[in-house]
Amino acid sequence: MAATAPTLLPLPRLMLEAIVRAALLEDLGRAGDITTDAVIPPGMQMKGVIAARQPGVIAGADAALLAFELMDPSVRVSIEKPDGSPVCPGDVAITLQGPARAILSAERVALNLMGHLSGVASATATLVDAVRPHKARIVCTRKTTPGLRALEKHAVRAGGGANHRFGLDDAVLIKDNHIAVAGGVRAAIERARGAVGHLVKIEVEVDTLAQLDEALATGADAVLLDNMTPAQLAEAVSRVRKVSGGRTITEASGGITLATVNAVAASGVDLISAGWITHSAPVLDLGLDEA
Amino acid sequence: MAATAPTLLPLPRLMLEAIVRAALLEDLGRAGDITTDAVIPPGMQMKGVIAARQPGVIAGADAALLAFELMDPSVRVSIEKPDGSPVCPGDVAITLQGPARAILSAERVALNLMGHLSGVASATATLVDAVRPHKARIVCTRKTTPGLRALEKHAVRAGGGANHRFGLDDAVLIKDNHIAVAGGVRAAIERARGAVGHLVKIEVEVDTLAQLDEALATGADAVLLDNMTPAQLAEAVSRVRKVSGGRTITEASGGITLATVNAVAASGVDLISAGWITHSAPVLDLGLDEA
Amino acid sequence: MAATAPTLLPLPRLMLEAIVRAALLEDLGRAGDITTDAVIPPGMQMKGVIAARQPGVIAGADAALLAFELMDPSVRVSIEKPDGSPVCPGDVAITLQGPARAILSAERVALNLMGHLSGVASATATLVDAVRPHKARIVCTRKTTPGLRALEKHAVRAGGGANHRFGLDDAVLIKDNHIAVAGGVRAAIERARGAVGHLVKIEVEVDTLAQLDEALATGADAVLLDNMTPAQLAEAVSRVRKVSGGRTITEASGGITLATVNAVAASGVDLISAGWITHSAPVLDLGLDEA
Amino acid sequence: MAATAPTLLPLPRLMLEAIVRAALLEDLGRAGDITTDAVIPPGMQMKGVIAARQPGVIAGADAALLAFELMDPSVRVSIEKPDGSPVCPGDVAITLQGPARAILSAERVALNLMGHLSGVASATATLVDAVRPHKARIVCTRKTTPGLRALEKHAVRAGGGANHRFGLDDAVLIKDNHIAVAGGVRAAIERARGAVGHLVKIEVEVDTLAQLDEALATGADAVLLDNMTPAQLAEAVSRVRKVSGGRTITEASGGITLATVNAVAASGVDLISAGWITHSAPVLDLGLDEA
Amino acid sequence: MAATAPTLLPLPRLMLEAIVRAALLEDLGRAGDITTDAVIPPGMQMKGVIAARQPGVIAGADAALLAFELMDPSVRVSIEKPDGSPVCPGDVAITLQGPARAILSAERVALNLMGHLSGVASATATLVDAVRPHKARIVCTRKTTPGLRALEKHAVRAGGGANHRFGLDDAVLIKDNHIAVAGGVRAAIERARGAVGHLVKIEVEVDTLAQLDEALATGADAVLLDNMTPAQLAEAVSRVRKVSGGRTITEASGGITLATVNAVAASGVDLISAGWITHSAPVLDLGLDEA
Amino acid sequence: MAATAPTLLPLPRLMLEAIVRAALLEDLGRAGDITTDAVIPPGMQMKGVIAARQPGVIAGADAALLAFELMDPSVRVSIEKPDGSPVCPGDVAITLQGPARAILSAERVALNLMGHLSGVASATATLVDAVRPHKARIVCTRKTTPGLRALEKHAVRAGGGANHRFGLDDAVLIKDNHIAVAGGVRAAIERARGAVGHLVKIEVEVDTLAQLDEALATGADAVLLDNMTPAQLAEAVSRVRKVSGGRTITEASGGITLATVNAVAASGVDLISAGWITHSAPVLDLGLDEA
Repeated sequence: MAATAPTLLPLPRLMLEAIVRAALLEDLGRAGDITTDAVIPPGMQMKGVIAARQPGVIAGADAALLAFELMDPSVRVSIEKPDGSPVCPGDVAITLQGPARAILSAERVALNLMGHLSGVASATATLVDAVRPHKARIVCTRKTTPGLRALEKHAVRAGGGANHRFGLDDAVLIKDNHIAVAGGVRAAIERARGAVGHLVKIEVEVDTLAQLDEALATGADAVLLDNMTPAQLAEAVSRVRKVSGGRTITEASGGITLATVNAVAASGVDLISAGWITHSAPVLDLGLDEA
Repeated sequence: MAATAPTLLPLPRLMLEAIVRAALLEDLGRAGDITTDAVIPPGMQMKGVIAARQPGVIAGADAALLAFELMDPSVRVSIEKPDGSPVCPGDVAITLQGPARAILSAERVALNLMGHLSGVASATATLVDAVRPHKARIVCTRKTTPGLRALEKHAVRAGGGANHRFGLDDAVLIKDNHIAVAGGVRAAIERARGAVGHLVKIEVEVDTLAQLDEALATGADAVLLDNMTPAQLAEAVSRVRKVSGGRTITEASGGITLATVNAVAASGVDLISAGWITHSAPVLDLGLDEA
Repeated sequence: MAATAPTLLPLPRLMLEAIVRAALLEDLGRAGDITTDAVIPPGMQMKGVIAARQPGVIAGADAALLAFELMDPSVRVSIEKPDGSPVCPGDVAITLQGPARAILSAERVALNLMGHLSGVASATATLVDAVRPHKARIVCTRKTTPGLRALEKHAVRAGGGANHRFGLDDAVLIKDNHIAVAGGVRAAIERARGAVGHLVKIEVEVDTLAQLDEALATGADAVLLDNMTPAQLAEAVSRVRKVSGGRTITEASGGITLATVNAVAASGVDLISAGWITHSAPVLDLGLDEA
Repeated sequence: MAATAPTLLPLPRLMLEAIVRAALLEDLGRAGDITTDAVIPPGMQMKGVIAARQPGVIAGADAALLAFELMDPSVRVSIEKPDGSPVCPGDVAITLQGPARAILSAERVALNLMGHLSGVASATATLVDAVRPHKARIVCTRKTTPGLRALEKHAVRAGGGANHRFGLDDAVLIKDNHIAVAGGVRAAIERARGAVGHLVKIEVEVDTLAQLDEALATGADAVLLDNMTPAQLAEAVSRVRKVSGGRTITEASGGITLATVNAVAASGVDLISAGWITHSAPVLDLGLDEA
Repeated sequence: MAATAPTLLPLPRLMLEAIVRAALLEDLGRAGDITTDAVIPPGMQMKGVIAARQPGVIAGADAALLAFELMDPSVRVSIEKPDGSPVCPGDVAITLQGPARAILSAERVALNLMGHLSGVASATATLVDAVRPHKARIVCTRKTTPGLRALEKHAVRAGGGANHRFGLDDAVLIKDNHIAVAGGVRAAIERARGAVGHLVKIEVEVDTLAQLDEALATGADAVLLDNMTPAQLAEAVSRVRKVSGGRTITEASGGITLATVNAVAASGVDLISAGWITHSAPVLDLGLDEA
Repeated sequence: MAATAPTLLPLPRLMLEAIVRAALLEDLGRAGDITTDAVIPPGMQMKGVIAARQPGVIAGADAALLAFELMDPSVRVSIEKPDGSPVCPGDVAITLQGPARAILSAERVALNLMGHLSGVASATATLVDAVRPHKARIVCTRKTTPGLRALEKHAVRAGGGANHRFGLDDAVLIKDNHIAVAGGVRAAIERARGAVGHLVKIEVEVDTLAQLDEALATGADAVLLDNMTPAQLAEAVSRVRKVSGGRTITEASGGITLATVNAVAASGVDLISAGWITHSAPVLDLGLDEA
């Protein structure tokens, strides 16, 4: 399982806090943790660890830390495996010490967040591993869980992947619907270029080599080569090299699996995008053990 | 794929609205859908359908409807396959008519919500199918996605499953940690009973038949039989029948898969819980097509 | 005035914080405490106590503490009489030390919360005292102040009472309207049982002994004996004992007053519910004095 | 029971909406109204009325209306007795028609809001009636329920009373603590006057006639005559008349009850304030009946 | 540039926090400060100052402080020039020490808030200086930036000005539209007086001396003399002195500029209001320099 | 005054709604519009227009529309001059018809929003006009009013300008601080490139031609030429043309005024950025007149 790149950007605590707070309140409901409060005495202390039960890559450690600290600031949380760290079964990712009530009450929220995000990171990492030794980077999509986009995008980076658009507003991505309405790739790109600022890149989905040629002629920043065979992709990469000297970024998408991704990468594309690393990644199995 | 039970309870629009609104704003960011607004003329109308691309069970149709209506109240949305409906590839779940801009801008949020929730419903339904003809019901856990618990619990019902606790506050669930601190099953149950109201049920996790006997002697409402073999489960069910006349609810949990669930159900337990139907269900593949 | 039971469950700070913060902002408006800020110098320190001016039972001490701490974290607050403590006139419930501005600005919000919740606790306690030596527990209803349900339910526990449903979602309570539509007690219970999870109890309101018999035959978890005379209640309790061995919980409601509650309790019912302990309890008179 | 004054100012729907929405969500919790949704068929319609069960004055009718409309916009709500209307037992305040599910699910929130606010209005009205034929107006305080200040202040107006400060920021009210720190009434008033805008009035609490003289000499806009006997109040009113030609507003406070209020009013004070009309008013008994 | 009055009331941190937090999140978006996080190592420390680049008056220092502390509580912020302080180019208003990432990430939000509010304070101060030696005070209006009213009103006080109404609810201001509907100044004032509490002042806009006479006869607390010449204003002030002994507050408004304000003040009015000090004040140029 | 470009992208109502709602509630406070509600009868209707009192360019018409509609959905609002329209004094931008109370209560919020945003658009348009016939586009910065960034960025587009970054997260902008820490332009760009996704552009601030050469050699997407003279700018543009064939975007910034902007544009730069068009633009004078 691959370690993440060294330049993993953090998520500011300010951005995590509202999400973690809401998750805790969702679980506490209108009466709090009635089991723990009834059974565990108020002053009791405990030590615990969050450990991996399967191999994978960690993401969401900061969110887990925050879950415990928001429940009770006197819980001491230490992150042993920061986001992006590969783990083996038994590896301790987080150590905890403090009031037993707070630790047990926040446990599920911490694991739900960290397990889900580590699942995204781990799924990403398997694809990242699978495309070696090719240059292609694995990128995510906007197919994320509502409310968690920033966190899932971060988890993709933790898994060694890179990020596509964060929303509808930070880049132009012209799809087949848009092209049909505009009356062609060129017209769509020109409409977009006339409407957005100088820091906004324009990517266009092309389903055929003819559309690719039109996109290259119009100077798109990136092309999304959708559902092409490896051979078509190789031809597309070759045309991009000829026309734009390789400056146009090439992205392959559509039906990417662990089985097919290396062949896709061998075509020479820059990027390979897969929705399932965010929308269908199983959780990474993590558990809280008393220490 | 199984149809859901006829008594599927709805989620009030009031409960969905804040979540769907936040999901749209997360995607719109600070500038809105710059691609669609640049390429698609303001007055243009379109018709579309959301159709299944694989077999499964629908959930989240109301959330998808709301995504389009919140983006523009003039979009007409008709739900052809309400939550709980089984679908085959090609089946139309939702039909749409209205401003093209609004439909395209809300598309991803609608599909993200409905795909995820239908994925939960479909995973549940496969387990529900697999336990036939036994009486056991499939139930969810608190291993849900932060922010989406109410929706995922609803999706489990749509898939023919039933709900476990909604949070830490609506039922007592005494786990091994609690038992260890309390000094035994009996002591833990008694502490809990002394602290909660008359409408709160008490379930206790038991790892051995000795613990089960103690739980039955103390009058627990339900027992969570964790990681037992089918044979141990059958013995447990038999003891419950003898001691409480079957009034104590039996729940099996731990490592439930499609391969093992029928054998577990054959033990005669009332409930079988599985975390992965909420935390690791892949999305149901749905797509928006022009109609 | 009775002390509360020893197992009073706390309200997590996380659940109180949003309510107390909103209460402070409601009072501060758009310019803050203009009187105090104009008259009291910034650096001035003061000591104070919140003391009872009449006998009663304390609830809401944590909320009061939070009001001062949120206004200024440097205020030192010490709770001398935690929730559930009986107090006599003059008893000090809370001691305070810190910036005079913060203490005076937060005073009213702290007293409004603590006075109201202590009023609920004290009203509950008078009923709890009045039913001695009978086994009946005093329970609250959903007739609570909008926005404060979790806090008022906690105050009822602080007063020695127990909690009924926290909302529409955590237990089934079938009322006369529902029975009329369903076509009878049995039909209503069966519809409910078919729709809810295994941890959800079902209580049914019965106005006659015939309805009671039907409820018992259908296996309701609890029966709400509405507006019955003590003699009718005694008969009902007797039937419950015969049919379900006492496992069905009996709750009396309707017109419960301090004058009538003991006679109701003498009927042997398990629970007596009263809306007025939350919706019409007068505040407990508390005041802030300089110390 | 007195009707309210004709110039009762409304509460904009925009101000009510967030409160009513939060109240509904508090009650719906994470699963909605499971009883009603299980027992009542989706399409069923009903007619109902909210009727008074005891004499009083209505307030909060708009909030009740909003509860039903937010639950389902297709419920038709008609207010028969707008805020400020006196009612007798049996009087219909609101008529309802629409989906039975929505009406039953919103019932408790509607009644909780309207019952509480009508309770405040009715308590106010009893004091308003009791001071006749004197000119004194009954006014509220800041002793309100956290989160509901604007609504309770409105209810006081509906009961024929008038409003004191809405918060710490809209008027200066110098109390004994402030005077002690400032070193006297005059110094406190001068500090306040130097700090606030021209539309902010200054009221000062005076416990003695000597303090009153100082307040009048400094030109306070209003004086709060705290815990004075009727005779002392009459003397205070006489001094105010002499010194400021009656322009200084006189307010009596402290231990105002239905038994004592007329004697207080007979002293000639302009205003009589009572905290209990907001913090300790019992609800007005209202009920929903099928029509 | 004038120093502010000594009794500048502070804005409680509780009121600033939500605004500053939202401003930071608006800037951080969905991925945080990608430039700083990519380029600056996590542990790096820096020292910095916020210094004035032009003369003016400081406001918003507490908001700037909060921006850095919310980003990272380990940043040490020291306010050298509190709100209301006059500054010259080069003067250090704030010193900073702590993690370079947090300081650089919060820099723009801190400067945006402090620059804007200092701009309002500085504009106010130029008018305050210009009316010397007359007694007139400079006051603001409700022409403020949506979301920032409390802060801009505070900035006006920091600049030596005073505050007009904070909203539609804390004072009556009868304008020409209202007078037209009511059928005259007297009728409008009487309607208002019948509807509001004793601590609410009534101000009326008068465009002619005849309207002024009517307002004085009805006992308005303040008159807004709109768009009158200095000569008309002087006549108005003279009539006020005669009729109400100067107790009626006089406010001049309409087209107030730095060039005209002294002549307006010379008329003897109590207050001069100007919308542009809040809605059109240019920012005060402040910058962050490494120290 | 210049008309805006034809491809002005709209701001979705969903993004405006929370801001306009909060602005109305800020103004309504805890008692609503007491003047209007006291003086204007409930049923009274009025017609009105929002008209320009000075020449400029409209922005924020949708926000103004929403202010009236949120106050009362029965107000009919018609936008005569959509965002981006040039107006002369007297031109009607919006016509209104409906309940007089709602129109008068929402007036100030509508004008505050529309006046401020039209001010931003108008300031932008003066610069846009001034750079003709050069190709340079006028762009905004992150120097915006906290809470209003999306709206002010839209207003810049309405004025014919273009948008720079919307936040810290949607593009890399390497400034002098970053370069100093990284140890040079090249190192900073490389660190950034290693950390961000393929749709994120990288711009770097260069203060000298040597830095520019380094930036061009490293392949920056855009260069910010800060505080250069027109001659230096021309030389920079020339080098860009030579090295990158003009693909590197050139942006001039620093001390841009109406007097200097044409000379700057004459250097051939692509973009000219100015902070004051958002942070210091005076409002456009708009007024509500009865029609």
